[in-house]
Amino acid sequence: MTTPLRIAVLGASGYTGADLVRLALTHPRVEIAALSANAKAGQTMAEVWPHFAPYPALPRLCRAEDIDWAGIDVVFGCLPHAASAELLSVIEGPRIVDLSADFRLKNAATYADWYGVAHPAPALLPEAVYGLTEFARDALPAARIAACPGCYPTAALLALLPLVEAGLISADRITINALSGVSGAGRGLKEANLFAEVAEAVHPYGIGRHRHMPEIEQELGRRAGRAVTVSFTPHLVPMNRGELETIIVDLAEGRSAANLRAAFEARYADEPFVHLLPDGVAPATRMVRGSNHVVLNVFADRVPGRAIVIVAIDNLVKGSSGQAIQNMNLMFGLPETMGLEQAPLFP
Amino acid sequence: MTTPLRIAVLGASGYTGADLVRLALTHPRVEIAALSANAKAGQTMAEVWPHFAPYPALPRLCRAEDIDWAGIDVVFGCLPHAASAELLSVIEGPRIVDLSADFRLKNAATYADWYGVAHPAPALLPEAVYGLTEFARDALPAARIAACPGCYPTAALLALLPLVEAGLISADRITINALSGVSGAGRGLKEANLFAEVAEAVHPYGIGRHRHMPEIEQELGRRAGRAVTVSFTPHLVPMNRGELETIIVDLAEGRSAANLRAAFEARYADEPFVHLLPDGVAPATRMVRGSNHVVLNVFADRVPGRAIVIVAIDNLVKGSSGQAIQNMNLMFGLPETMGLEQAPLFP
Amino acid sequence: MTTPLRIAVLGASGYTGADLVRLALTHPRVEIAALSANAKAGQTMAEVWPHFAPYPALPRLCRAEDIDWAGIDVVFGCLPHAASAELLSVIEGPRIVDLSADFRLKNAATYADWYGVAHPAPALLPEAVYGLTEFARDALPAARIAACPGCYPTAALLALLPLVEAGLISADRITINALSGVSGAGRGLKEANLFAEVAEAVHPYGIGRHRHMPEIEQELGRRAGRAVTVSFTPHLVPMNRGELETIIVDLAEGRSAANLRAAFEARYADEPFVHLLPDGVAPATRMVRGSNHVVLNVFADRVPGRAIVIVAIDNLVKGSSGQAIQNMNLMFGLPETMGLEQAPLFP
Amino acid sequence: MTTPLRIAVLGASGYTGADLVRLALTHPRVEIAALSANAKAGQTMAEVWPHFAPYPALPRLCRAEDIDWAGIDVVFGCLPHAASAELLSVIEGPRIVDLSADFRLKNAATYADWYGVAHPAPALLPEAVYGLTEFARDALPAARIAACPGCYPTAALLALLPLVEAGLISADRITINALSGVSGAGRGLKEANLFAEVAEAVHPYGIGRHRHMPEIEQELGRRAGRAVTVSFTPHLVPMNRGELETIIVDLAEGRSAANLRAAFEARYADEPFVHLLPDGVAPATRMVRGSNHVVLNVFADRVPGRAIVIVAIDNLVKGSSGQAIQNMNLMFGLPETMGLEQAPLFP
Repeated sequence: MTTPLRIAVLGASGYTGADLVRLALTHPRVEIAALSANAKAGQTMAEVWPHFAPYPALPRLCRAEDIDWAGIDVVFGCLPHAASAELLSVIEGPRIVDLSADFRLKNAATYADWYGVAHPAPALLPEAVYGLTEFARDALPAARIAACPGCYPTAALLALLPLVEAGLISADRITINALSGVSGAGRGLKEANLFAEVAEAVHPYGIGRHRHMPEIEQELGRRAGRAVTVSFTPHLVPMNRGELETIIVDLAEGRSAANLRAAFEARYADEPFVHLLPDGVAPATRMVRGSNHVVLNVFADRVPGRAIVIVAIDNLVKGSSGQAIQNMNLMFGLPETMGLEQAPLFP
Repeated sequence: MTTPLRIAVLGASGYTGADLVRLALTHPRVEIAALSANAKAGQTMAEVWPHFAPYPALPRLCRAEDIDWAGIDVVFGCLPHAASAELLSVIEGPRIVDLSADFRLKNAATYADWYGVAHPAPALLPEAVYGLTEFARDALPAARIAACPGCYPTAALLALLPLVEAGLISADRITINALSGVSGAGRGLKEANLFAEVAEAVHPYGIGRHRHMPEIEQELGRRAGRAVTVSFTPHLVPMNRGELETIIVDLAEGRSAANLRAAFEARYADEPFVHLLPDGVAPATRMVRGSNHVVLNVFADRVPGRAIVIVAIDNLVKGSSGQAIQNMNLMFGLPETMGLEQAPLFP
Repeated sequence: MTTPLRIAVLGASGYTGADLVRLALTHPRVEIAALSANAKAGQTMAEVWPHFAPYPALPRLCRAEDIDWAGIDVVFGCLPHAASAELLSVIEGPRIVDLSADFRLKNAATYADWYGVAHPAPALLPEAVYGLTEFARDALPAARIAACPGCYPTAALLALLPLVEAGLISADRITINALSGVSGAGRGLKEANLFAEVAEAVHPYGIGRHRHMPEIEQELGRRAGRAVTVSFTPHLVPMNRGELETIIVDLAEGRSAANLRAAFEARYADEPFVHLLPDGVAPATRMVRGSNHVVLNVFADRVPGRAIVIVAIDNLVKGSSGQAIQNMNLMFGLPETMGLEQAPLFP
Repeated sequence: MTTPLRIAVLGASGYTGADLVRLALTHPRVEIAALSANAKAGQTMAEVWPHFAPYPALPRLCRAEDIDWAGIDVVFGCLPHAASAELLSVIEGPRIVDLSADFRLKNAATYADWYGVAHPAPALLPEAVYGLTEFARDALPAARIAACPGCYPTAALLALLPLVEAGLISADRITINALSGVSGAGRGLKEANLFAEVAEAVHPYGIGRHRHMPEIEQELGRRAGRAVTVSFTPHLVPMNRGELETIIVDLAEGRSAANLRAAFEARYADEPFVHLLPDGVAPATRMVRGSNHVVLNVFADRVPGRAIVIVAIDNLVKGSSGQAIQNMNLMFGLPETMGLEQAPLFP
C-alpha cells in the first residue's frame, strides 16, 4: 500500500473548497489532513455544510495559521483573490494548487488593474503554471505552483485554443456569451444571490468588465502572438451549477465549421474529459453536472464566414475543484483521472 | 355604460391562449364569449388550467366550429401555425388578432421554406398588419388582421429597429443571443420540456434554424432597404416565463454606445411599455415578469466599434398575449394600455 | 371623481411592502403618498426593486420620521415585529393596517414569550381587530387598527375555523404540515436563503417553535372556548411564492369528510376569494400564484375517524399584502375586491 | 484480478435504470453487459440520456428478448410494474434485483387491489426478499430475488421500524407527510410533469390512495404482529431528486422523543448509510443529494404524547438504484458500500 498525499484546503467554507473536499473524499490516494476557514474555525464541516452531515469524521475547520505544514504534501488555495497569494506566499513545504485568481495573470500590473489591489506576491508569478490541464501537461509535473483557471476561461479556452493555434479563426472579433449557475458567485451574503432574486429569472452582469476577461485574452494572446481583445458577456441563470458558452467566431479565409470540427476531433480524440459531441448535437450543462467532463461542438452560423462554438462544463468541477485535482494528479505522477471518475448526475 | 367587446379565443388550452384569458378577465371592456380547444371540448377551463380554479364561471371549452361568429367582435388565434390560418381564413365577421406565425411573413414562399407547409391562405397576407404595436400604430386602427410578432422578434425588433432606422448600426453582423423560459415551447408533451430535463440546466436549441429568424430579417430588411441576415441562437433556461436577448451590433462609423442610448431615449420616451433603463443598469427578466413591459439598455463592448444591446420581456405577455390585447385596443379605439396595467410580479 | 385614499407604506424595502405597492399601483382608489425604508432612504423604488424599473414615478424611499402624516389616510406597517408597533404607536391621524406580528396576539405576555421582547405598545392591543377578513367583516369598518394575520395562520384558520365552529372536528390533535415558498423568509441576508442552498432541496424548519403557532392557537381557542394546542411543522420549498397546508383532523363522533365539505360549501359559497374545489381535486399553489385567492378541499383519511383538509394561498397576497388591502377596503367602505382582481399567474 | 459481475439492466431508458447505470459505471466489480429498452432499441445511451454523452462506449440499448442470459450474473428490473414480473419470471440463470413494485407485496390479492392487474408471477413471491437492506442482511446473501422497496417506504420504514420493533410508538395513528422531487414520477410524457406545471409550485397527489401505502403497512404490520393502517400524503415539490418525510407518531405510555433518539442511536450507530443527526438538526434533502445516504432525526411535538420523526433520502439512490446495488453487493458477498461511496452533491 502506498503512502497517501496529505492535503490541506484553505477556505473550506466556500463552494470551491467544499467541492474539493467532496471529490477528495473518494480519491483513493488522498488523505484530508487539514481544512481551514478562519471565520468558522472550530466548527465541523457538517455544521457548515449540509452535504457533509454524513461525514462527521472530517477534520474540524481550523485557522489557516494553525496548520502544521510539515506533514502536508499539497495545499489547495480556495480563498478570495489577494488573500490567497498573501497566505500561500509564506507557506513553505507543500506544493500549491491555487484556485483563486492570484497566480493566473502573468503581469502584476494587469492584475492590479482588474482586481484593484497590488499583487501580494509578484515574485511568485513566473513559477506558476497556468493549469488548464489539457494544455499544461508538460509543465505541471515539475511545477511548485499550479494556478487553476477561472471557470469561464476554462470553457472558453478549451473551445478556442485549438482553433487559434491552427489559424482556423480570427483571434479578433471573438464574441463569448456565457451562462452560469449561481454557485459561481460564491456563498457570500449578497442580495443578488438570494433564491427569490434568482429563481424564475435571468440577467447579464459584469458587462464589459468581468474579471475573467484578461485571463482569456492573456492565453489567447500567447497563442496568437499578439494582444487580443474579446467580447464577453456573462449571464446568471437560475441553477446551482453549470456553465455554457456560446462563442461566435470569424472563420479564417476559406475555412468552414467542418474544419473546426476536424480540429477538435484531432485535438481531443484521446482526452478523458473533453468530448466533441456528434455532429448537430447541442452541448447542455446537464451532460456534465457534478463531473469533470467537458462537452463541445461547432455549428455553422447563418451569417456567412462565421461559426458558433458551444461548450459546457460544471463550473465547480472542471471549472474549479475537479481541474484542481486533475492538476494535482499530474503534479504527483498519479493517473490524471484518479478521483474524478464520477459520472454526471442527471436528473 | 358602453357595450363590451365580445371576444373568442381559438386554442384556449395552450399557454398563449390561457394568458390571453388571464388578461381578458380584468379588461374592463372585454367579455369572454367563447373559448375553443377541439381536443378538450366540453371541459371547463378550471379542469384544463390550475389557475382558473377560482373562475368556474368562464365559458366551457368548445369546438371551434361550434362558435357562433355572429356575436363576436374579435377572434384571437392561439393555434399552431397552419391550423390557425386555415381556420381564420373561413371566419367571417370578427376582426382577427392572430398570435400564430401564419400572418407574419409577407412572402408565402419564405413561409413554406421555414414552416415546411404551403401557406393555407396566402391571399390574406397583404392585408395583415405586422403587429409590433409600437411600430404599427398607424396601420392597426383600420386593420382587419393583426399578425402578432413572435416573442423573440418582439424583443429583437424593439431593440434594433430604432438603431437601423437611424443608421446608427450596421444591419449586417447582428448577433442575437437569446434566453427563454420554458413556456415558449408550449404545453405539448415533449420529453425536452419535462421538469427533470429542464431544471438545473441550460442549453441552446434550434441553432441556425429557429423559425423566428426570417421574421426578424424581414422587418429589419424592410427598414434597411435590403436583405439582411442575422445570427440568432436561442437557449432554454429553467424558468417559466421571461426572455432576454443580448445583441452585439457593429456601430456605424463614428458612432458610440452613447448615440444608441440617445436614439432609444428619443424613440421610447413616451412609450407606456418600453423603458430605457438608467445608464449602466442591466435588463433582467424579473423586471417584467407577468407584465406587458419591456426594459432595454445599451453598453459599450470591449471590442472597439461594437455595442451590446440588451432587452427583456415576458414572452407570454409582450411577447404574445399582452401585445395581442395592446393591438386589439388600437384596432377598436380603446386606450392602448387598457387591461394591461398589472405591475410585474416579483418575487 | 372621488378623492383617493392616500396611503403610506412603512418598510417598502421588504417583500410584503413591495407586494403591497404592486397591488396599490392598480387600485383605482389608492394614491401612494409615501414609502419608507430607513436604511435605503433616498433611493428610488426602481433602485431597490427590479420589478419597479418600469415605474420611475413612484415616490422615493424616505425615512419614516420624515413622513407628513397630516395628509395620509391609512398607513401599512410592513416592518419587522416590535419595530412596527413602536413606530405605529406614535403615529396620529391615519388608520393602521399592520402586517407585522405586533397586533395579532391579544395577550402581551404570550407575545413576549414567543417574540422575546416586551410588547412595545400593549395598550393598543384591545382595539386591534384580527384581520382574517372573512371572519372580521363586522369589526373592520370601525377599526382603527387591523392586525393582518400571518401567512400560515391565514391558511390554517380559513381551513379550520368553520369546522371548529360547527363542532365537526376535535380542536385537539390538529396536525398542520405546511410548505412555503422562500419569500416568506423575507429579503434579509441569510445564508439559508441563498439560491444555492434552497434550490433543488426541501427541509423543515422551526419544528415545534414557529411563531405562527400561538396565533393559530389563539384564534382556534377563541372559537373552541378553551385553550388549544396544535402541531405545526413548516417546510421550505424551492419556489418564490405560495403556501400549502395539509391538515389532519380528528372527526367528531359520527362525522365524515363529506360533512366537512358541506360545511365549507355553506360557509364559503359566496366568498369572492375562498374557493372550495370540486370533490377530489387537490389544491395546488399554482392555482393562486400572485392572486388573493384561496383554494381548499377535504379528503377522507385512510386512518378511520380522520380527514385531510388541504388549503393553498399565495403567502405574499392573501397571506399578507392582498389581505391587507382587502381589510383596507372594508375599513373605508370600498368594495372588498377592489384592486385585487388580478387572476393568478400561470405558468 | 477478480472476475467482474456482469449485469443487465432492463428498462435503461427510465430514471431508475439510468441512475443504476450511473452508479454501475464506477463500481469496481461490475461490468455493464446489456442494457434494454424495447421502445428505444438500437439507440445509444448518449442518444437517450444527456449525461451519458461522455460515455459513447456504453452498450447500445437492445430489446430485452435479445439479451443472451448465459453470461449475465445479475439482472436489474427497472421496468414498470407487471411488465417487470412478466419478463423476469421467464429468465433463467441470473439472480434478480427488481426495482419495480412486483415482488414487494407478499399477498397477490393485495397487489391486484392496488395495481389493478393480476400478479403475473405469484409463484415467485415467497422466494423474494424485501430488500430494505438494513433489515434484510440475513436473507439477501442466499436470495435469488431481491425486491427493492419503493422510495417512500424506504424512508418511512427506516424511520419507523426501530420504533415499532421496540414498542416505543403506537403502530396506529402514524401520519406520514411526504415531499418528493419530480424524478419519482418517471420520464413518461405527462402534462403534470412538464417544467412549467411543476416549477414555482407545490401540490399533494394520490391522497389516500398512493401505491406505496400497502407496502409500508405490510412491513410495519409484520413487526407489529397485526394489521396496521397508516395515513400517507405525498406532495410534489419542484426539484429533480430528493424525498423528505415528516412523520407524526403517538408515543407509547411514558415514552419521550429522547427515547426515540436513543433507539435510533443504538440501531444505526454502525450503519454506513443511515445517519442520526445531532440533536435539534433538521434533516434536509440537500444533505444526501445524489448519494445513498439517509439522514434522520426526531423532535418533540407541541401536542403532548407525540413526536415528529423526519427522514430524508435521494429517491433515485437509496430510494431506488443505490439500494439495488447495495442489495447486489450483499447477494454476491461484496463489501456493502462498494460503488456507493460518492459524497452528496451540493450545491
